[in-house]
Amino acid sequence: MQMKRPPEVLLLGPGPSPVHSRVLEALGQHTLGHLDPDFLEVMDQTSQLLRYVFETENQITFPVSGTGSAGMEAALVNILEPGDKAIIGVNGVFGQRMVDVASRCGAEVIQMDAEWGKPIDPEVIKKTLSAHSGVKLVGVVHAETSTGARQPLEPVVELARKYEALILVDTVTSLGGLPVEVDRRDLDIVYSGNQKCLSAPPGLAPITFGERALQKFHQRKSKVQSWYLDLSFLTRYWGEERFYHHTAPINMIYSLFEALTMIREEGLEDRFSRHLLHSSALVAGLKAIGIEPVVNDKYRLPSLTAVWIPENINDAEVRSRLRRDYLIEIGGGLGPFKGKVWRIGLMGNGSRRENVDRLLKGLSEILDDMGHHCSVDEALSEAGKIYHQQA
Amino acid sequence: MQMKRPPEVLLLGPGPSPVHSRVLEALGQHTLGHLDPDFLEVMDQTSQLLRYVFETENQITFPVSGTGSAGMEAALVNILEPGDKAIIGVNGVFGQRMVDVASRCGAEVIQMDAEWGKPIDPEVIKKTLSAHSGVKLVGVVHAETSTGARQPLEPVVELARKYEALILVDTVTSLGGLPVEVDRRDLDIVYSGNQKCLSAPPGLAPITFGERALQKFHQRKSKVQSWYLDLSFLTRYWGEERFYHHTAPINMIYSLFEALTMIREEGLEDRFSRHLLHSSALVAGLKAIGIEPVVNDKYRLPSLTAVWIPENINDAEVRSRLRRDYLIEIGGGLGPFKGKVWRIGLMGNGSRRENVDRLLKGLSEILDDMGHHCSVDEALSEAGKIYHQQA
Repeated sequence: MQMKRPPEVLLLGPGPSPVHSRVLEALGQHTLGHLDPDFLEVMDQTSQLLRYVFETENQITFPVSGTGSAGMEAALVNILEPGDKAIIGVNGVFGQRMVDVASRCGAEVIQMDAEWGKPIDPEVIKKTLSAHSGVKLVGVVHAETSTGARQPLEPVVELARKYEALILVDTVTSLGGLPVEVDRRDLDIVYSGNQKCLSAPPGLAPITFGERALQKFHQRKSKVQSWYLDLSFLTRYWGEERFYHHTAPINMIYSLFEALTMIREEGLEDRFSRHLLHSSALVAGLKAIGIEPVVNDKYRLPSLTAVWIPENINDAEVRSRLRRDYLIEIGGGLGPFKGKVWRIGLMGNGSRRENVDRLLKGLSEILDDMGHHCSVDEALSEAGKIYHQQA
Repeated sequence: MQMKRPPEVLLLGPGPSPVHSRVLEALGQHTLGHLDPDFLEVMDQTSQLLRYVFETENQITFPVSGTGSAGMEAALVNILEPGDKAIIGVNGVFGQRMVDVASRCGAEVIQMDAEWGKPIDPEVIKKTLSAHSGVKLVGVVHAETSTGARQPLEPVVELARKYEALILVDTVTSLGGLPVEVDRRDLDIVYSGNQKCLSAPPGLAPITFGERALQKFHQRKSKVQSWYLDLSFLTRYWGEERFYHHTAPINMIYSLFEALTMIREEGLEDRFSRHLLHSSALVAGLKAIGIEPVVNDKYRLPSLTAVWIPENINDAEVRSRLRRDYLIEIGGGLGPFKGKVWRIGLMGNGSRRENVDRLLKGLSEILDDMGHHCSVDEALSEAGKIYHQQA
């Protein structure tokens, strides 16, 4: 009995995002050996394409053989040793996760908090850095998937440079959807995930390490606690030596290669504009039916919009009706946002007008049916105005 | 520019093994959300199918979101705490890797050695266990991918039980190709990889934990050093709670589901016999052209055969001609076997007569051309005798 063909659910949640048929086709190609010359070529080209989307010349740029969280762990375990000090910004689930992972490396973690949905205040970063000497690393989440908030990176970089700390940035929900600019911004360690704005299937975590980070890595006194994620092995496998470490997830890399190729074909600038446009249209449409975004426009991600669930509306019921009757997935809230917030992703291949319209229609109809009076036409018309302005 | 279609190389190396078109088709299906009800069903069924191939009732049975080595790391980091004693059998690369991973957990590792290509002697296990008190874990590699040797498990289990140590078994190159029998043999922690006898694409590491192992896990005093591989999160995600931990590699799980379904359709017994048959035919054919296996028949794996490279024959040249002119991949030797040994896998979907014949033909022709006199006909005829006996 073969696997039941999965229904064609439109993925407008916090990830995975919709995977293009070209990428799925690449995924299903003949599996080569992990040291086959044709596969090694795909590896090299994948690294090169990743440099393009990260906007970096970093030699050490490759996909970790695990999901986005493995990327986070790879970033932290390679840099932090027991006793090292790390300052980490927490304004959502993923900053909190970074604290947990860093603590498990034996680091002394100093947490900088901000309200969920708001960025970490540069004043707080400044105070924290000046209050602690010898900080090795400052970690922030560029795009908080739990809230849809964007962290401005410039002040973080400026302050971390001043105190000679490395800068670690989680770009899981930004890479390929909004500018990450590793080199221009002078970021030291940056990781992401396949399944958000890159629109590849989940399972790989692109990562890049700059010179400063590599220097710190080479100065380590202790072994990296993870053998699987030890950068010294990984760079020898992804580098010219082709030193056998583990068997790369061949087909997953095919799919990432293809997804990145599609990004290069579109061009980063056009892709970023597209994400902005559809996200603005979505918000305009949602506002028309009384649904407000959680994050202030200035910090709102173009890839992921968290919105307040209208009062007296049952979260789970709406989402399950959207899934059942409209074949659309959106995400619920995590932690303090559970039951209060929906998370709507327009990421990568998912960021398109037809998807905005389809979601606005489905959501309006369901909410109207549930007694939250609203009109499909108004929602579509307000979204349409944004498209009209743009045209 | 789309990815170049990979050449249809026949994978007869130490893994990955040939992936069936049904499995590749499943891999390329529409990506669902990681909490989608239809995907959750696939997860449950995948765990159930894994229980079938592991031959276990263990509730905690699922694929780790990483390759086989991530499975090894998941097994060790969850069980070992700093100061714990672990005895590990080393007779090849993967036993050595286990030592490295266990040491990185802070464990005191006691290494039991055997010559490459030979199993660990039960007398050595007995001596080692009796010489060290309070050993928490005994780890062995059931199928050493670097040598093609099988480790008999019964004496290991008997002795470990006597000394109340947990039994950890690496079945990367055995699961689905020869009996693993987790429950009947009373093994505590067993992991494997997708890309060997299961014939799914590389990227997932099936693992199973028995009650005794879970008890030890729950008695831990320290946090698991890996957040990504922490069993407490993973069991909540794979269990009924569906607690969000990381985004599962959706499409990879589709492919594993399909590969496992094909195993259940064939039946484990028939699959094991098939592996034995083709491996015997291969060895008979190779012997006919003067190529001898490294491992004694008694301990030779039916899934992977290491053979001595004939004198004065250049390893790399043969393998690259096989790849170029016959589109066949076989593996070279690792460590002390480099340049001396070829590793020929007949795993999962690759274990078929047409592949045995194709390899014997290619290899004979190349060797003959290189001055190692040998006859294709003799090789095929000796292999044929095995098939004839069987029929």
